[in-house]
Amino acid sequence: MPESSSSFSAESYFATQPPPPGLEHDIEGVKEFVRRQQEEGRNVVLVTSGGTTVPLELNVVRFLDNFSAGTRGATSAEYFLKAGYAVLFMHRQFSLQPFSRHYSHSTNPFLDFLEIEPGVEERSSFTASGAGSEGSQICVTLDKRKTLLEVLTIYKAVHAAGTLHTLTFVTVNDYLWLLRAVSQELSVMKRKAMYYLAAAVSDFFLPRQKMSEHKIQSGKGSLHIEMDQVPKILKPMVDNWTGKDGFVVSFKLETDPALLIPKAETSLQRYGHQVVIGNDLNRRKFEVVFISWKDALPSSSIDMADSSSSFAESWLRIDPHDHNKEIEEDIVAELVKRHEMWIAGGTTSTKS
Amino acid sequence: MPESSSSFSAESYFATQPPPPGLEHDIEGVKEFVRRQQEEGRNVVLVTSGGTTVPLELNVVRFLDNFSAGTRGATSAEYFLKAGYAVLFMHRQFSLQPFSRHYSHSTNPFLDFLEIEPGVEERSSFTASGAGSEGSQICVTLDKRKTLLEVLTIYKAVHAAGTLHTLTFVTVNDYLWLLRAVSQELSVMKRKAMYYLAAAVSDFFLPRQKMSEHKIQSGKGSLHIEMDQVPKILKPMVDNWTGKDGFVVSFKLETDPALLIPKAETSLQRYGHQVVIGNDLNRRKFEVVFISWKDALPSSSIDMADSSSSFAESWLRIDPHDHNKEIEEDIVAELVKRHEMWIAGGTTSTKS
Repeated sequence: MPESSSSFSAESYFATQPPPPGLEHDIEGVKEFVRRQQEEGRNVVLVTSGGTTVPLELNVVRFLDNFSAGTRGATSAEYFLKAGYAVLFMHRQFSLQPFSRHYSHSTNPFLDFLEIEPGVEERSSFTASGAGSEGSQICVTLDKRKTLLEVLTIYKAVHAAGTLHTLTFVTVNDYLWLLRAVSQELSVMKRKAMYYLAAAVSDFFLPRQKMSEHKIQSGKGSLHIEMDQVPKILKPMVDNWTGKDGFVVSFKLETDPALLIPKAETSLQRYGHQVVIGNDLNRRKFEVVFISWKDALPSSSIDMADSSSSFAESWLRIDPHDHNKEIEEDIVAELVKRHEMWIAGGTTSTKS
Repeated sequence: MPESSSSFSAESYFATQPPPPGLEHDIEGVKEFVRRQQEEGRNVVLVTSGGTTVPLELNVVRFLDNFSAGTRGATSAEYFLKAGYAVLFMHRQFSLQPFSRHYSHSTNPFLDFLEIEPGVEERSSFTASGAGSEGSQICVTLDKRKTLLEVLTIYKAVHAAGTLHTLTFVTVNDYLWLLRAVSQELSVMKRKAMYYLAAAVSDFFLPRQKMSEHKIQSGKGSLHIEMDQVPKILKPMVDNWTGKDGFVVSFKLETDPALLIPKAETSLQRYGHQVVIGNDLNRRKFEVVFISWKDALPSSSIDMADSSSSFAESWLRIDPHDHNKEIEEDIVAELVKRHEMWIAGGTTSTKS
């Protein structure tokens, strides 16, 4: 077998890897959603969330996955919605979603907070058919009612206003094709579009040409997997797909704290977008750092005015022991402010 | 770095890989559960379900996973419970569970079938504090009520009877340590214990000594992963951990139909347990094959009495278009029958 190049450009990627089957249908829905938000005058944020997979076989038995419950993305989406944004929520199938995240992945499935109430004739409005006339109701237990009421109320409001549109991906291939298509649709919103790229995207993948059709058999001693690098799509995303006007926020997750700032700065330098949010795997729930272009911010908001650096570094921390506080509330508040400035056009916040 | 042997025995595995932190606590719970079931005279089945992971780094960013929603295990557990068994449900964290499986991984999170009913004074029993006196109730919508009532009723009955005990694993390491310890606890039940091994267990893993501490950096061209074989634990399980009296059922999943029967027969021959259930990835929801020892079954129930083979091959099929039928109902009914025969001791169904 000829040795393939170990790095695909974005162009050669899309030329050689097939699009996911549901793509056209997904994009129809996005087009309609974006059109409506434009009409209603909202800002829109694309939130990506959860990990992507790399299947090892065409008949998928095994796959490489990226560790991500989707907490960052799902939580942030909730705060963006509360801030009046319309949200395109593009997440890994079965990972956390806004609102249901409070209940979906707990040790006590929701069945534990439902109780059966035997029917009372004058209570329900009965129909001639079915369950109503039996009278039994299934209702939430008293101890769960208050907090669920808060979540359910805003969930229904969002549903009624039509400000949340959900898309799913599983593989890194699904993700790349969807990200490109969705960004192209969103680019009509120009500066009013934000791209909040919180998904944990595979760095390596198996090109279709290298995948085995059937389950790799385990009788043969050790297993060797050789994978190619996933193309860096931030470049075409910033330069082409978002139409150069979108407010692009990417994330850097590191396990070695010494690498965090250097890698975040390198990323911003290389791709020329607006913000890199750096987080240390073990501290991410209470501490993040915003790396952005120094000349994009009012001088008062810059932590470290190192005159030799083009970058502004702004740390955001909350009390790790405060269980009622989520750091995403502050992350989103800060980004909403910066996005407003971006929309107002009062900044030169793209690398020239 | 010295080249490690590419295959660990079960013994060398447990001698070199550390146990998961929660193990002792998990086993206390299992001990108590098993003791109670013995007292109450039930049969007990250990159902394993979902895929195991192989983390690539000690600070987990990436991992290899096995494709498995947990449908087979979670559905079978429900039918075992309905058949009067006590069930030890050992599943991949966040994978499907009995009962909640009907709702947990759907496109419509459960929030979609709850509605807020403004309070009526005389209806609820109020307490001086909180939600009750506000009067709002949160109840299930009419159209979802009937089917949810069925599921919820049996869920509560199982909960009240205490016949379902749940354990979770994530990594293949968690799984192996837990399987060994749980089997050893269950072995006191002798013939009344069944082991239904439906989990999708990793064939390959990275020994702790080969794992990198930090996130493997993606700047370096292609990624090479070299993995060792996971020891075949069916052998010590059948020979030692289950005390030789347990009724052990394993699964074989293949993507190439030509390999299915040969591999299932090889497995039964090699480990000498009671049943191998073979399934083709693409047909598993409506077709499985039971491979067992010919002399363990009444001659009337054998599909293919090939006098030269020690094996009996019994196909179980349902109508793929019948959406109200689950094949696990028939799988469990067949196994309950065979287990009863095993308990009665009227068979010589272990390889001599």
